[in-house]
This record gives sequence, C-alpha cells and structure tokens, in this order.
Amino acid sequence: MRSLYNRIAGQNLDRLAALPDGVFAVAMTLLVLDLRAPAAEAIHSERELLDALLAIAPRLVPYLMSFLTLGIFWLGQQAQLDRLAKSDRDLAWMHIGFLCVVCLVPFSTALLAEFLTFRAALLVYWVNLLLLGLALLVTWRHAWRTKLIRDDTTSEVVDAICRRITIAQALYAVGAALCIISTYWSIAFIVLIQLNYALAPPWPSPRRRG
Amino acid sequence: MRSLYNRIAGQNLDRLAALPDGVFAVAMTLLVLDLRAPAAEAIHSERELLDALLAIAPRLVPYLMSFLTLGIFWLGQQAQLDRLAKSDRDLAWMHIGFLCVVCLVPFSTALLAEFLTFRAALLVYWVNLLLLGLALLVTWRHAWRTKLIRDDTTSEVVDAICRRITIAQALYAVGAALCIISTYWSIAFIVLIQLNYALAPPWPSPRRRG
Amino acid sequence: MRSLYNRIAGQNLDRLAALPDGVFAVAMTLLVLDLRAPAAEAIHSERELLDALLAIAPRLVPYLMSFLTLGIFWLGQQAQLDRLAKSDRDLAWMHIGFLCVVCLVPFSTALLAEFLTFRAALLVYWVNLLLLGLALLVTWRHAWRTKLIRDDTTSEVVDAICRRITIAQALYAVGAALCIISTYWSIAFIVLIQLNYALAPPWPSPRRRG
Amino acid sequence: MRSLYNRIAGQNLDRLAALPDGVFAVAMTLLVLDLRAPAAEAIHSERELLDALLAIAPRLVPYLMSFLTLGIFWLGQQAQLDRLAKSDRDLAWMHIGFLCVVCLVPFSTALLAEFLTFRAALLVYWVNLLLLGLALLVTWRHAWRTKLIRDDTTSEVVDAICRRITIAQALYAVGAALCIISTYWSIAFIVLIQLNYALAPPWPSPRRRG
Repeated sequence: MRSLYNRIAGQNLDRLAALPDGVFAVAMTLLVLDLRAPAAEAIHSERELLDALLAIAPRLVPYLMSFLTLGIFWLGQQAQLDRLAKSDRDLAWMHIGFLCVVCLVPFSTALLAEFLTFRAALLVYWVNLLLLGLALLVTWRHAWRTKLIRDDTTSEVVDAICRRITIAQALYAVGAALCIISTYWSIAFIVLIQLNYALAPPWPSPRRRG
Repeated sequence: MRSLYNRIAGQNLDRLAALPDGVFAVAMTLLVLDLRAPAAEAIHSERELLDALLAIAPRLVPYLMSFLTLGIFWLGQQAQLDRLAKSDRDLAWMHIGFLCVVCLVPFSTALLAEFLTFRAALLVYWVNLLLLGLALLVTWRHAWRTKLIRDDTTSEVVDAICRRITIAQALYAVGAALCIISTYWSIAFIVLIQLNYALAPPWPSPRRRG
Repeated sequence: MRSLYNRIAGQNLDRLAALPDGVFAVAMTLLVLDLRAPAAEAIHSERELLDALLAIAPRLVPYLMSFLTLGIFWLGQQAQLDRLAKSDRDLAWMHIGFLCVVCLVPFSTALLAEFLTFRAALLVYWVNLLLLGLALLVTWRHAWRTKLIRDDTTSEVVDAICRRITIAQALYAVGAALCIISTYWSIAFIVLIQLNYALAPPWPSPRRRG
Repeated sequence: MRSLYNRIAGQNLDRLAALPDGVFAVAMTLLVLDLRAPAAEAIHSERELLDALLAIAPRLVPYLMSFLTLGIFWLGQQAQLDRLAKSDRDLAWMHIGFLCVVCLVPFSTALLAEFLTFRAALLVYWVNLLLLGLALLVTWRHAWRTKLIRDDTTSEVVDAICRRITIAQALYAVGAALCIISTYWSIAFIVLIQLNYALAPPWPSPRRRG
C-alpha cells in the first residue's frame, strides 16, 4: 500500500525528460575536458606543437566512442520516454538510477583514455556499458508491467526495444571478451557495434537488429 | 505595497521548473569529477591499476549517497512545482535559494569523500541536507500561505509534503548524531534512509512515512 | 534591407528562453568549483580540518554574492523574455551577448574570492555587474523600439524595467566607489543592494525601487 | 528496409532541440574555465594584480571569438530545427554528430589561447569551424532530401541556408589561409567575419550574404 506522498511524486513526464537532456549534455561536454591543450612551457616550435597534438590524438578514440555511447543511450532513453502515457515515482527513480550510470561515463572514458592497453580499464568501461543497458531494460520492463506505456504501443514495439538492448549487450560482451587478445581489438569491435547502431545501415536481413 | 516590477517578475512556472533541471543535471555530473582516473605515471601493470582502482572505490559511497540526495530533492522540488497554479517573485527567490544549497552538494560530497572518518566533514554534509530540507519546507509553506497552489490540492496533500520533509530531517539528524560512535555508522544510516525514500518499499504501516 | 536568412533566424522564443536557463544553471554550479575541499595530506585531526574549513569560509561571501547576482539577472532576463510577443535575429544576438557576460561571472567571482582586499579585483567584479545591466537595458530597448513586446505591456511596465536597471546600476556604482575606503565596504554595500532586490521588503515609498 | 526500432527512435523534435541547448550552454560556460584568476601567492600589491590581469587579457580574444562561433552555430542549428516538420533517427544522429564537434570548441579555443602565434593551433581551430559547417550542411541536406522540412518552407529558404553556410566556410578558409602571413591576421579576419554574421549590418547589396 502506497503512502500519499509516493502517489503524487514523480508524475511529470516533461520534467522526467528534461533532467536527462541536461545530464547527457553535461556528460557529453565533460568528455572533452579530458582533452587538454599541451602546456605552453614545453612547446617552442610549430614542430613541437604538432608532435604534442599527435601525442594526444589517440585520446580522440575513447572520446568519440563515448560520444557514440552517450548518443545511443540518450536516444534509447528518449525513445522510451516518448512512449510513456504517464509516470510514477518508481519509474522516476529508475531513470535517476540510469542517469547515475550515465554520469560515470566521463570517468570510465578518462580511465580508458589514460590506460588504453590495460584490460582493467577496458573492463571498467564495459561494466559501465552493461549497467547502462541493464538500467534501460529495467525501466522499460517496469513501464510495461505497470501499464505506464501509451496505448498505441504494440507489444511488437515493446519486444523490439527489449530485444535491441539484449542483442547490443551480447555484442558488447563479445567485444569485452576480445580483450583476452588485445584491448585494441575490444575497442575496435565496440566502436564498430556503436557505428552500426548509429549509422544503422540497411542490412539485408532486418531481423538481425530487431 | 509591492512595486510594479516586483509584481511582474518571477511568474513564469515553466522557467522556474527549467532552471532547477539544469542545476541538478550539472550538480549530478560534477559529483563524478571527484572520481579521478589514477595518474598514468604511477601505474606499470594490470595489478597496480587494479590496486589503484580499489583504492578509489570507497569514494563511490559518498558519490552514490549524494546522487540519492540530489534525486530525492529534485523529485521533492518538482513535486512542489507540479502543484503550483502560479508563481510570484518571492517564491522564485526561495527556489533560487534552494538551488544555492543544491550547488553546495558537490562541495560537501568532495569534502566527505576526502575525509570519510572526520566528524567535521560529516557534520558539514548534514548541515547541507538540513538546509535542503528547510529550503523546501519554506518554499512550500510560502506557496500555501499565499495561495499559489492549484485548487485540486487537498490540505491532506499539503500536510503530507510537510510531514515527509520533517520526518526525513528528523531521521537525518539521528544519522548525524550517530557520528558520536563513528562516521561510518552515520553514513550507513543516512544511506539507508535515502534508499528507503528512493525504493519506497511498501511498509505494513503507511502512516510511518506520511 | 535584410537578407532572407536574417529574416528567418532567431525567431523561436522557447529556444531563446531555454539557452539562458542552461547557461545560468552551469554558471551557478561552477561558482562552487571555487570552493575546494582542503587537501587530505595536510590534515591529521578534527581540529586541523575545522581550521582548514574556517580558513575557506570567507570564500562563501563572494559565492553567495554571485549567486544573488545570477539570480537577480536570471529573473531580470526571464521577466523580459516573458513579455516578448516575438523575437528577431538581432534580439537573439543581444541575449547571446548578455549570456557572454553571464559566463564571466564565475571568473570574476573566483578573482574576488582570491583577492578580497584588492581594489583591482573588486573593480573587475563591478565592471561585470555593469555589463550585465547594460546588456539587459540594450535588449529591452531594442525589443521596445522594434515592437517585439506583447501588446498587453503598458509603457508603465516598459519604463519600470528600464528604471529598475538604471537605479540598480547607480547603486552598484556607489558600492564600487566605496572601495576608496575599503573593499569590504564595497562588498557589504553590494550584498545589501542585492539582498534588497532579492528579498524586496515592502518599503514605505514604492517609488524608490520603481 | 528499416528495422522496427529504427523507425520509432529519434522522432521527438522537442528533445532534439533541448539537447543542443544544454550542450551549447555547457560549452559556452566551459570556455571561461580557460580564464583563471592568477595565483594569490605570486601577487603582493595592486600593481602586481593589474599586471597579472593584463597578462591574461589577450586570452579574452579567443574566448570572445569562440562565444561568437557558438552563438552563430547555435542560431544556425535552431533555425534548421525550427523548420522541421518531423525528425527521424538518421537526422537525430547527424545532430548528435554536430554536437560532438560543438563539444570540441572549448578544447580548440584553449589550444589557440595557449598558442596564439602557432599556425598549428590556428589550423586546428579552423578544422573545428569547418566540421561545424559541414555537419550543419549535411543535416540540412538530409532533412530536405527525406522531406522532414515543414511545407511552408520555400526552396528559396532551403537554398539560402545552404548558401549561407557555404559562403561563411569560404570566408573562414580565406581567414585560415592568412596564417601564412601571421596568425594574428587570421584571427582578426575570422573575428570580422563572425561580427559581420552576428551584427548583420545592412549591406548595400543583400545578395552578398544570401
């Protein structure tokens, strides 16, 4: 039995959609704080500046990878919120939990950029991806179970969203496992998965990506 | 007697709800700036990186606690704003005052993360929680007294919101007092209070949490 | 004669109101980045932590002063935007110019917090206040001259907004001039002006604050 | 053939407009993080503080230039979003790609501020400008080709937007090329181009700026 307060809180869908916009915007921008201009004292010629810029260029890879990650999960969350007819307190909290994992992305990105060849850094990044997926799956299942979803949403759409998250997570897990060979393989594989989701090329068999 | 300017300022409810979304989003994301990747120079093996990561793991506790804090007070403020029929300049200023206290949360979290075993750090954190609660109580009472609340809001709801804030603050005070034994007890107790509010398990007696 | 592009750009009032919300939210939160937890290495007892916290306490004064500043000018800008019937490209650019000055507030606050007793720091802060006021005056006059303001806005309201900005700036100038005696007098006077605008106590003669 | 998920994602125009507001707001505010108050230890008199402030004054130039850049491209993106009747997943991703380039502006600004006289820093800044323009051109062409634009948008408007981006980029390229003489010439020229777009003075021949 719910207390009165719990029945009135967390019902505003506009606010529930606006907070993530802010969190994602800040997280996206913070990713770049990791890219720092080289210190002026150490640079005395164009040559040295070019060398210093080339030295920080590999950091662009985790930056772009995380931007893709944030883009994918922002779209994923907004696709869910778009489908809601109403919200409740529990759903609001699940989305706040999701945002809590989103806020960790700049940290795990900075860690990976600093330790590109270390499996521990890559696995931290993968756990972050895994938690993002799990959080979105939990929010969606709760919304479905407690009938918060708009009536015009067919069970086909509900399943498509679940399937998509599950397949993506299975692919990410394969990517993470590739770190047994080399972390570069993992990163390359994860970036390919993400480009696939971002670019969404029209594959011959549409089944494959739900 | 109010001047003309004061009668026309601070009336837009949409804007009054949008500013907090931004402030909370930034504050949530800044919490994580406190989690820093270890410096690459000190790390030479997977072992050392794992050890360095384990060493910063305890910092996740204040991070998660503050994320819960911000989530609770974001929902609390939005629940109030949802109930408003209109706003006035004084109410706008009270909400800005509340945001001023919200912006201090990353500071008091960083302080607590740095000094987990120091009572002074814990009490600073508790004062921050106390000010958050007081600010929300003041905004709500003002809204009620000056009839800014929507007509469909029963006095039962008005009281439920006041009661909830008061009980939560009483529990936080107990948590803070536990630092006489140990700051760990305080932190554990405060996290439990917050999980209780976030998860809102259906207690046998709904009276207890208003 | 306007080019086609210039006639279609910058017309969306919702967006013009949303960007400032974001800028003010970030600027407010960045103010606190100036408050840093003392370094753990230097602290070995509760006593030392308390001393370190007391040592950073004076920094709260410029923080609170700037929060008041940002609150006053956020309300001031939103009061203007609320009155607009439409927007044009020039007005959009004037508001972007205003935001450019808003973004300097965390810098001039950090400068003042670091150099509380230096007149140069205080004058930089005052120039920032002056530019904020001028920018708002320019946007408002442009909106009035080019008939972008809603029809239900009487010329009384238009004048009240201009008068308010002018009087506030005159008072800030007096506050800045007080630094001839001492920067503390200036800061105290400016904080009093701002509290007056924030709290808006009902003075006997409403004329005084327009 | 599109999968079901790809047909339902990224359709919400409100969200697609709100995320950029947040990203631009944070990027604008982060520009100023580059302006740092001088360290208190090195300053012992008003004279020394004034000298230190004058020493960081040249950094205001790249700051203002980038604020103009962000203002121009924020208006450019919003002008496009204003014209959309609907969105699709591909367009959402193109706008996310644009935001990815926007987030690099604080980095390339900090680089230029640190290395004002280095051609490498100027060229990095120019590449950033170029990518911003290309991204906006790509989003607009996609919106046009896939009929996402509102019916009341004449092909004259569609062309005006394309032409404007192309001419601006041609001028930026000329500005970048001027670094063969000196980076100061480049910066001065780019600032003039941007002031021209921001102030939009009524030139005798409106053709020139389309």
